[in-house]
Amino acid sequence: MRLATIRTGGAERLALVDPDGAALTLPAPGRPGPSDLPDLPDLLRRGPEAWTELAERSPSGPRLPFSDVELLAPLPRPANNLFALGLNYTDHGQEAYRAAGREYRRPRHPVVFTKDRRSVAAPVGPLGIDFSLSKEIDWEVELAVVIGRPAWRVDEARALDHVFGYCVANDITARDLQTRHKQYYLSKSLPGSCPLGPWITTADEVPDPHDLAITLSVNGVARQVSRTDQMVFSIPETIAAISRIVPLEPGDVILTGTPAGTGFAADPPGYLAPGDVVECSIEGLGTLSNRITALD
Amino acid sequence: MRLATIRTGGAERLALVDPDGAALTLPAPGRPGPSDLPDLPDLLRRGPEAWTELAERSPSGPRLPFSDVELLAPLPRPANNLFALGLNYTDHGQEAYRAAGREYRRPRHPVVFTKDRRSVAAPVGPLGIDFSLSKEIDWEVELAVVIGRPAWRVDEARALDHVFGYCVANDITARDLQTRHKQYYLSKSLPGSCPLGPWITTADEVPDPHDLAITLSVNGVARQVSRTDQMVFSIPETIAAISRIVPLEPGDVILTGTPAGTGFAADPPGYLAPGDVVECSIEGLGTLSNRITALD
Repeated sequence: MRLATIRTGGAERLALVDPDGAALTLPAPGRPGPSDLPDLPDLLRRGPEAWTELAERSPSGPRLPFSDVELLAPLPRPANNLFALGLNYTDHGQEAYRAAGREYRRPRHPVVFTKDRRSVAAPVGPLGIDFSLSKEIDWEVELAVVIGRPAWRVDEARALDHVFGYCVANDITARDLQTRHKQYYLSKSLPGSCPLGPWITTADEVPDPHDLAITLSVNGVARQVSRTDQMVFSIPETIAAISRIVPLEPGDVILTGTPAGTGFAADPPGYLAPGDVVECSIEGLGTLSNRITALD
Repeated sequence: MRLATIRTGGAERLALVDPDGAALTLPAPGRPGPSDLPDLPDLLRRGPEAWTELAERSPSGPRLPFSDVELLAPLPRPANNLFALGLNYTDHGQEAYRAAGREYRRPRHPVVFTKDRRSVAAPVGPLGIDFSLSKEIDWEVELAVVIGRPAWRVDEARALDHVFGYCVANDITARDLQTRHKQYYLSKSLPGSCPLGPWITTADEVPDPHDLAITLSVNGVARQVSRTDQMVFSIPETIAAISRIVPLEPGDVILTGTPAGTGFAADPPGYLAPGDVVECSIEGLGTLSNRITALD
């Protein structure tokens, strides 16, 4: 399944992306009982039986072309935490150390931080950024992992069983604030700093999340071009490391790091400005496309 | 008011600490309507009118000595974020830099990070720690600020208007994990790593939160002895800095940094072990007293 959250006729609804990716359908109302049409946080809380039941429903009404709906973030707010990893692609680690004038050292443990859950933003359309907070708004395309089953001290071998699905994220970062406040949270939590989507592809449809092309362009110019096999810590290693210390809950999201090609590591450095169009794609998972606007 | 959360007769209840600090009373049921007896998260969401209404209620039933009740964290889970500041006391910054063999540099901007909201623990009684995760469990007594009114881009001059009250926290930190994972979140989020309480003293009863003695002892030996006037960034500066970037919500908690005397900066370093009794006190706000036990 590919699950989107849309606004149509004034209401927010969960919708299924058609197999050809060209339109959406609304699932029919479910069987009597608790199987009314949930939103995505509900669906995740209800667990695997509800997921199967939803997948088996017939469509309700006609196909909706993307042009007729407003696509929202599939999960408007992660359940408990929006985790992210720093320096988790070898090529990005190398560029970051080079920009700092230091020799690259591969991290021996995952660099885990949180972004504010309220920073999640829509996967398409205008993205308002408050440039009065920062003049160094940078991009980071990332593979986002959506947790489906509670994970507490899970082994790497079983870690992927806890994944509901995958989507694309842009871990937008205010580089000047990142330097200024040392710890990453504030610089990664500006309003609008986590476009997410365009939909969630369930794990059964992603044969190998570590073998996907991952790219980002600004105004049509490719800036990040890599593959998810460049991750330093794999998704199972990351889930095992985090869930050793804190429980992961259904609806938590983990951003798994960004590849080389960020703005701050370019020579000269380049950042986002109003009017820029940022596109983030991961093979098979779709594309985020946001035009940057300046918030008053 | 001094507001505690207690478990008595199997139920969790909000209770008021008597003026002499020796016992608790349960407030009487409120007037008809929405003024039933709330828990503390409810009370914070309801806003200032509900606080006044609660303060005016007569007591219900006899005084309860502390020996008859189980004292829980006054706020079992912060609303949206449990914020904390790094290196926010001059004396602690100096000891931390010394331990790292570096010359002290006073932070020019607050070092803001998050602890997991689920790490909040009871202010008294046994505190289970999983020593299989870390051999370097360290203590940090801190003044905790509880937000009462939504704060979004507030000026320093008005920042204290958004504070509901104050209490004591122990920002327990796994030093080995802090070094290992670089960003602080994981090392500060172990289960049980934020004893909080013993109750919340409302802001009207704390004339100057920047002029309080703050101390911590382990097994009766004083380890941290300082005053809150040693903070690098004041509470208004901190609220202004955070709320410039993310909204603060009623029930959010900010830990405002720890003074000198942490275990890792001692010579030789010393850490907590099962059986240790840790007491954290702030003038006028009460004492946390926990005996460390080893979780299986």
